[in-house]
Amino acid sequence: MAIHRFDPNFTNNVVNAMGPKTSPRLRQLMTGLIHHVHDFARENELTVDEWMQGVQLLNWAGRMSDDKRNEGQLVCDVIGLESLVDEITFKLADEAADAPTATAILGPFFRADTPYRNNGDDIVVNKPKDGEMVFMHGQVMDFSTKKPLVGATVEVWQASTNGLYEQQDPEQTEFNLRGKFKTDENGRYYFYCLRPTPYPVPDDGPAGKLLQLMDRHPFRPAHIHILATYDGHKPLTTQIFDRKDQYLENDSVFAVKDSLVVDFVPRKDDPQAGLELNYDVKLVPEAKTNGA
Amino acid sequence: MAIHRFDPNFTNNVVNAMGPKTSPRLRQLMTGLIHHVHDFARENELTVDEWMQGVQLLNWAGRMSDDKRNEGQLVCDVIGLESLVDEITFKLADEAADAPTATAILGPFFRADTPYRNNGDDIVVNKPKDGEMVFMHGQVMDFSTKKPLVGATVEVWQASTNGLYEQQDPEQTEFNLRGKFKTDENGRYYFYCLRPTPYPVPDDGPAGKLLQLMDRHPFRPAHIHILATYDGHKPLTTQIFDRKDQYLENDSVFAVKDSLVVDFVPRKDDPQAGLELNYDVKLVPEAKTNGA
Repeated sequence: MAIHRFDPNFTNNVVNAMGPKTSPRLRQLMTGLIHHVHDFARENELTVDEWMQGVQLLNWAGRMSDDKRNEGQLVCDVIGLESLVDEITFKLADEAADAPTATAILGPFFRADTPYRNNGDDIVVNKPKDGEMVFMHGQVMDFSTKKPLVGATVEVWQASTNGLYEQQDPEQTEFNLRGKFKTDENGRYYFYCLRPTPYPVPDDGPAGKLLQLMDRHPFRPAHIHILATYDGHKPLTTQIFDRKDQYLENDSVFAVKDSLVVDFVPRKDDPQAGLELNYDVKLVPEAKTNGA
Repeated sequence: MAIHRFDPNFTNNVVNAMGPKTSPRLRQLMTGLIHHVHDFARENELTVDEWMQGVQLLNWAGRMSDDKRNEGQLVCDVIGLESLVDEITFKLADEAADAPTATAILGPFFRADTPYRNNGDDIVVNKPKDGEMVFMHGQVMDFSTKKPLVGATVEVWQASTNGLYEQQDPEQTEFNLRGKFKTDENGRYYFYCLRPTPYPVPDDGPAGKLLQLMDRHPFRPAHIHILATYDGHKPLTTQIFDRKDQYLENDSVFAVKDSLVVDFVPRKDDPQAGLELNYDVKLVPEAKTNGA
């Protein structure tokens, strides 16, 4: 705890006000939260006026939020909190003996009801004029044995060149730019999609105001979402980013990791696509439980 | 910084994203906020699901807030943040050579347009059936010389026994339970008011939900607000609390300080009041500037 000139017992008094029926996890989280919030206020000698500006900003976020928009989430995103809790949750899931796919870390645009398509299909149902076509393919294999996994599922989803996912955009056909594929007898999947493009997070609310105050832009680098699953293996949820994207080094929501950067390369002699992306997926076998 | 097993560069990357046009104070506050929020998440291994519950709670607070209700403020109050920034702001004002009355620390129920009344007046325009009448009086004096200050202003405001201030309650006459008084030739003020009563903060929203999860009650101990001013002296803003109140030790918003606890004592031979409260006010002279 920092040394300061304010009531030294105040924070403990607030923490100790919690009653005996508080659940252990809530007690832990509220204790940590209260300590950090109070330390933040004392260390920076936060004034009533400054605090009230923060309150008004959070209230504004709540008022903007509805079924289609979560501005509170976006405010967290621009200070990196969602990416951080993603990292934490991935790590916890990775360490668990039997990790189910956490729907939360799939992000807000995942749809559980996405239909299967056939390898070789084109997920670009509505082709934007400024879209570049990509032949995406790869192999799903076992992380330990490197053997191909036959019949594994690879699910992908991406925004169109206007920055909108199909469920955000009345102009797009349902399930446009998303699909599930089963790997073939060699563990391979392949299909046509768009080269993803960067897009700004909505910046007409408090998250945009914060970005402006912090002298930052609202853009996310281009990415494709992937969920790969196979029985007896831990599911893999990820986003892959275009190495040539101008916002790769300064994603407005801090989701880029070096290992997730991929190369779109020229593809020859394919009338359907001028670019190609190879992305192999290695799935980790589930840990066996109780030594069985 | 705590040792942890997550990306050690992540928080600095988020902080360093701030551009050169960020104001120095905002940079300081956002740097502190980002560090504390990230440390909180890592130390407690906050999951995506837990974080999202917090986001939904803050969005709910925003949706409940309007001109008459600030639920985001109330959420802060129940974790002690408003009382803490009050303490910080008071201390900063106290240290300033020439401290104006900070309207922010007067709280949401202060009204700048409160009329003067005469000493001896009754501020209880609408007398509630369960109200106990109090003769409140005291002397305003100079902190250094202890000499009475003649013509000082003492302003008071209080909630009625239903827990509502007049501007919250259509049943109360305007300026009910509030008034400004000038001290007489002996520096004394005196008037009739209600013995204040405890009341719950609104608990039908996220602040109430948090209180319930923390196994706490929503009550505030009974109190009267006071603002005392006199030319050449620092204004004094305070709340005084009834020593006999059952919630004195566990105010739901943590505003009680020992020095602010007062005694309501029986008053004899006054048909207007069965109780009496003596509260003297010492005002600190403004520091002289530039040795003048």
